Amino acid sequence: MTTPDASSEKPTKITEVPPGIAPVVILVEPQLAENIGMTARAMANFGLSELRLVNPKNGWPKKGVREAASGATHVLDRATIHGSVAEAIGDLHYVLATTARERGQMKRVFAPEAAMGELVAREGQRNAVMFGRERVGLTNDEVSLADAIITFPVSPDFPSLNLAQAVLLVGYAWRQASGRAVLPFSGELLSPPATREALMSLFGSLETALDEARFYPPEKREIIARNMRDMLHRMSLTEQDVRTFRGALRALTRKGT
Amino acid sequence: MTTPDASSEKPTKITEVPPGIAPVVILVEPQLAENIGMTARAMANFGLSELRLVNPKNGWPKKGVREAASGATHVLDRATIHGSVAEAIGDLHYVLATTARERGQMKRVFAPEAAMGELVAREGQRNAVMFGRERVGLTNDEVSLADAIITFPVSPDFPSLNLAQAVLLVGYAWRQASGRAVLPFSGELLSPPATREALMSLFGSLETALDEARFYPPEKREIIARNMRDMLHRMSLTEQDVRTFRGALRALTRKGT
Repeated sequence: MTTPDASSEKPTKITEVPPGIAPVVILVEPQLAENIGMTARAMANFGLSELRLVNPKNGWPKKGVREAASGATHVLDRATIHGSVAEAIGDLHYVLATTARERGQMKRVFAPEAAMGELVAREGQRNAVMFGRERVGLTNDEVSLADAIITFPVSPDFPSLNLAQAVLLVGYAWRQASGRAVLPFSGELLSPPATREALMSLFGSLETALDEARFYPPEKREIIARNMRDMLHRMSLTEQDVRTFRGALRALTRKGT
Repeated sequence: MTTPDASSEKPTKITEVPPGIAPVVILVEPQLAENIGMTARAMANFGLSELRLVNPKNGWPKKGVREAASGATHVLDRATIHGSVAEAIGDLHYVLATTARERGQMKRVFAPEAAMGELVAREGQRNAVMFGRERVGLTNDEVSLADAIITFPVSPDFPSLNLAQAVLLVGYAWRQASGRAVLPFSGELLSPPATREALMSLFGSLETALDEARFYPPEKREIIARNMRDMLHRMSLTEQDVRTFRGALRALTRKGT
């Protein structure tokens, strides 16, 4: 039993972000199949597709990794295996190392968003983000091979971030920095907004109905009517809403006769 | 075997964000222990601590959930169980529903950052973010109980986001919107930057050494020297770096004599 909501295994076509644009993700000595699979899934969620594994513990491929990837098998199938960090980064131009703690190395330290801004500015170069072992992270020697550091603004009460969660945050930040963070749908009106004429006519009908129902004490009629107009304005009614509201009002007044 | 890098089970003290400030997280009919545990962990990473579960599938507590929480048991221990969304949200003032697809409901649709900006602006109210079932999300009826919608800017090639990953992104966005996204360490210089005097003296020593080593063709001496000064400037050397560099240069020139 591994992970979540596994979707079907039909192959994913990569059409949005061709390889070579998003950063390469390098996992150094990852141990758990769940983490590698969830890393692949998190990468695919945001358009990253190039995964490099440095000496995955207990061999490769790992049992359970495909299930944990939940359909992101195109990332796993293209993953490459390397014997050392030096070998894994040889062809790259700019490499960031993630670390949760200060290393006493004089490198620039970035939050994920600022780091991905740097990568996007280096368009055309081959860039990567490197993640360390589940328990102990990257060694100081491995960090020393990176150009700069990424760290995460975690709560000091509970700073331990899961490996695949860290990859997710970097992928998300890259998507935002690269201008691809478009929502799959918007909150556009399904019907045009009501004209002020339609709205004022609705106010009139409502107030007339309430007059007839003797809702208002006469001395408070004006102030209550204004408050109710306020309430209706706050609803940002559409044309369809006004029709629905009018229908409901008609039904209620019919019932009263 | 469940999840990642489980840390020790010593109780976590919540000192950074007292309950009542960060949004409540509501999981509706979550199925997998891994997802609930990883949700608790992701919440704790960013200072969220109030978890409500609506009808968790196959009962509660679930086997494996504590392991998946990897130490964030303070979130699980305080989690409350509810029979319906209506019951779970009764005492709240503003509720956001996460959904991956358009629902034909005329609600505002937010990216996580914008949504969390709304919540932060409602400080003092009790707010929540609601997440649906692993495979099918929230029902339209459940979404209709929310004030507005959050959706995620995922890749159209691979939009399926894991439940705990979605919680992580919301928690991260809340941390940023609430001004708490401080990095645990910075890239401050470990030694003061070198003065220009120290740097110019280093240029002088280096150029003298290279003159003596007959490195420069005479007609190119000036241009090469300027290029090397450029290289050294790009290093943003500290006082300590200049001392190290001078030492290395002395060692190299000693060797040559």
